[in-house]
Amino acid sequence: MSALPPAVQAPPSALGTLDRCRALVRPALAEAVGRLHPWVAEMAAYSFGWCEVGGAPAAAPGGKGVRQALAVLGAEAAGADGRAGIPAAVAVELVHAFSLLHDDIMDGDATRRRRPSVWKAYGTGPAVLAGDALFALAVETLAAAPGGPGGVRLLSAALADLVRGQADDLLFAARPCAGPERVTPGEYRAMAEHKTGALLGCAAALGAALGGAGEPAVTALDRAGRHLGVAFQLVDDVLGIWGDPEVTGKPVGGDLREGKKTFPVLFALGSPAARHLPALLGPAGRAEEAAALIEEAGGRAAALAEARAHTAVARELISGLPPAAGAAGELLGLLDHLEDRDL
Amino acid sequence: MSALPPAVQAPPSALGTLDRCRALVRPALAEAVGRLHPWVAEMAAYSFGWCEVGGAPAAAPGGKGVRQALAVLGAEAAGADGRAGIPAAVAVELVHAFSLLHDDIMDGDATRRRRPSVWKAYGTGPAVLAGDALFALAVETLAAAPGGPGGVRLLSAALADLVRGQADDLLFAARPCAGPERVTPGEYRAMAEHKTGALLGCAAALGAALGGAGEPAVTALDRAGRHLGVAFQLVDDVLGIWGDPEVTGKPVGGDLREGKKTFPVLFALGSPAARHLPALLGPAGRAEEAAALIEEAGGRAAALAEARAHTAVARELISGLPPAAGAAGELLGLLDHLEDRDL
Repeated sequence: MSALPPAVQAPPSALGTLDRCRALVRPALAEAVGRLHPWVAEMAAYSFGWCEVGGAPAAAPGGKGVRQALAVLGAEAAGADGRAGIPAAVAVELVHAFSLLHDDIMDGDATRRRRPSVWKAYGTGPAVLAGDALFALAVETLAAAPGGPGGVRLLSAALADLVRGQADDLLFAARPCAGPERVTPGEYRAMAEHKTGALLGCAAALGAALGGAGEPAVTALDRAGRHLGVAFQLVDDVLGIWGDPEVTGKPVGGDLREGKKTFPVLFALGSPAARHLPALLGPAGRAEEAAALIEEAGGRAAALAEARAHTAVARELISGLPPAAGAAGELLGLLDHLEDRDL
Repeated sequence: MSALPPAVQAPPSALGTLDRCRALVRPALAEAVGRLHPWVAEMAAYSFGWCEVGGAPAAAPGGKGVRQALAVLGAEAAGADGRAGIPAAVAVELVHAFSLLHDDIMDGDATRRRRPSVWKAYGTGPAVLAGDALFALAVETLAAAPGGPGGVRLLSAALADLVRGQADDLLFAARPCAGPERVTPGEYRAMAEHKTGALLGCAAALGAALGGAGEPAVTALDRAGRHLGVAFQLVDDVLGIWGDPEVTGKPVGGDLREGKKTFPVLFALGSPAARHLPALLGPAGRAEEAAALIEEAGGRAAALAEARAHTAVARELISGLPPAAGAAGELLGLLDHLEDRDL
């Protein structure tokens, strides 16, 4: 297939970009999952929203596929055909699915995208196994790809960060709301960068590396993805408190009742206006009053300002890339979409 | 340091080999674990028997270290200094530790080497996380090693097999004792090769690859390790039924009460002499009578004969390697030791 002529018109919508990349990656992702043990493959397919328990086809909405899109756009930003980024896209989607499976076990989350989470549907042991299988498959996919060694190094560094971020997130729960041991916004940023940003950065960087990009572009895309991840997590935090449960699929005030140390909460806890906040948090607290107090203390505005600042850095990094076939425009469109989602 | 002169005397004892390789690998393994998140590093160190819960030093016996020894000997069999195999040794020990952590969760095993297993000591969620971290660290270690790309391919293939074998093992539990759906000895062999053999084969093959061995030697060592793994699992099965609990650390008849479909049981189930066996298995069964019936039906003798046959193939594969500095002799000594342990 010959390359399309460079786009001079407005870039496609973010949803169009996500759809295009999903369609490009899906056959390879399905082929990889099909190589798994049949039982494990069913759990993987269930987690992707491709089937129900038992294997019947499902039309459940899968994830947005942001990571696979970043990998494809990363390759395109390097001037290559987007298909060069497919092994990277498959690997990062597999790693993302692995991390959701295991995180749901660790966090005790019984639902994911409006369906029972994998451990709830299949049992904890099988869900641990399915996560491990997805993890192994991701590494195998990338190790077999052309230009593999550097790729595996990028992926394994992201994996190490992912686990580090999840460890910090789990430990934050046990930290006090006040005093020198409380979680600082700086610690929160590091956690979010590791837990969410590392894989987004890896997706774009890996795609670029497989597309033949040089070191500076690979590094710039990795950094952009990391900033995007922090912004993504901040927006998630805001939606977890003030989002429409119809849209987010999460119960109103759920994060507050769980006493999660999200950025708006951490920000508010640093303000004298919110000295009664700790008493309103947790399962015995009053989530609605807590949300109002956090908003009053500036927690919501601070989180959104911080998210915008991180997106701005990501935007600058992407704008600095050598122009290639409209990929930067689509990357920027994706950033805007993720920043604005349902706020 | 200059290489030692080729050994002409009898090879060291298997325990001497294990000790030598453990001492060689330990600093690099400790350094790798030290790069983990401190909380995760403690769980990893606990699982290696290096510390107690809370981090106080422990003198708990760690594992035998068979995998790290195979990696070092693999490098030496390629004519290299054993230190060339260290990244392989570190990677396979990390993968082994990861698989023990997650398998104990899946199997609900509350003790491991006479101590609470990691999920029992730290909780299921943290144990899932620690396993993931060890897995990621293994890949990272190998990706950073010289000659990494082929190495990562070998490791990820072994990981895929490992997960496949564990899936089969979990599913065997739900299969009936009789009829066309029962587990066949052939299925058992495939499960054992995947679950236990793949990583042993990978250890030796990876060490050899890092030592600069050619494709035939790498393949021969991989195959030898796979046969060794099947033999290892068969001997484990025998010890799980007739072993001295003082030595094995497992309760008498535990495997029979759990209704595990081990090779001696599967063999006996195929014999008309043991038609009453199914009723004696499981938590409500009579383990002592079951053990006697399995022995009578030839299950013990068949398992040991099968183990010897697999070890013989492994021995032949190793004997066919080009001679290099005594490594083959030490590999053979290790095989004998593993075949004869505590029987």
